[in-house]
Amino acid sequence: MLTIRPATESDCGHILALIRELAEYEQLAHTVVATEDQLREHLFGTRRTAEALIAEWAGEVAGFALFFHNFSTFIGKPGLYVEDVYVRPEYRRKGIGLSLFKQLAATAVGRDCGRMEWSVLDWNTPAIEFYQSLGAVPMSEWTVQRLTGEALRQLAEGKRDNSVG
Amino acid sequence: MLTIRPATESDCGHILALIRELAEYEQLAHTVVATEDQLREHLFGTRRTAEALIAEWAGEVAGFALFFHNFSTFIGKPGLYVEDVYVRPEYRRKGIGLSLFKQLAATAVGRDCGRMEWSVLDWNTPAIEFYQSLGAVPMSEWTVQRLTGEALRQLAEGKRDNSVG
Repeated sequence: MLTIRPATESDCGHILALIRELAEYEQLAHTVVATEDQLREHLFGTRRTAEALIAEWAGEVAGFALFFHNFSTFIGKPGLYVEDVYVRPEYRRKGIGLSLFKQLAATAVGRDCGRMEWSVLDWNTPAIEFYQSLGAVPMSEWTVQRLTGEALRQLAEGKRDNSVG
Repeated sequence: MLTIRPATESDCGHILALIRELAEYEQLAHTVVATEDQLREHLFGTRRTAEALIAEWAGEVAGFALFFHNFSTFIGKPGLYVEDVYVRPEYRRKGIGLSLFKQLAATAVGRDCGRMEWSVLDWNTPAIEFYQSLGAVPMSEWTVQRLTGEALRQLAEGKRDNSVG
């Protein structure tokens, strides 16, 4: 019943719909501005930076995973970073999430990656428990810092010269 | 006095030394297994996944930054992720860290990245204050999950089938 396969260019519409559903679940729907054309460009076009897997249940798109390679300077190897994993509500409790993670892990091992990482929202208890059951370790000592929009442009243009460092 | 330039292949020895000094500062020196050959392969060879900048002060290597591109599905664009930034103790308080961050931000903007991100250890107060002065926002709701070594291999080989998901 379940097939996990690499996404193809014709999946971009499905992928965008799944990204929007995931954002809805994460209460972040207002932050989604991605378009189908952008996904096509960055997954399959001249500026490839990410890859995706599609999960199909009885021929219907049930979920997806999107990942790219990061790099660990301490291990000296690339890692596999999973940006998104999502299974549609009506397809849950069928092991589809686990199958996606298995395929991602097999990809990481097959490509000689030193580790596999992803992020979770701190209120998403079901996901956190699932990740624990996989043997994942929460990197609780670390916090991601994000610079975006006007602040990013100001730094790029040298307008933050009052900073010390 | 200060030059920020892209690293070249002949910098790999310096970069490895800087990575080890950074790990020392982060109390993680025991986790560094990277070799100069691995850096050469992944920064300049057939498996390029990352790039580096070198900061020179009066012709001496004073620090570095290492980065790669991630991808935001919500923005629909690549981002610039800074894996390491380090300035040697004897070269601090000269604005070298700020210059490295400026150059990284200029690279992100020049390549049409939607955002720039990096991670910080929660006890590193001087760094956290510096990042705040840059306008960075801590993504405190998110925790990175990491799967490595035996747990990663077991998942890849389907030996975690007792998990639910």
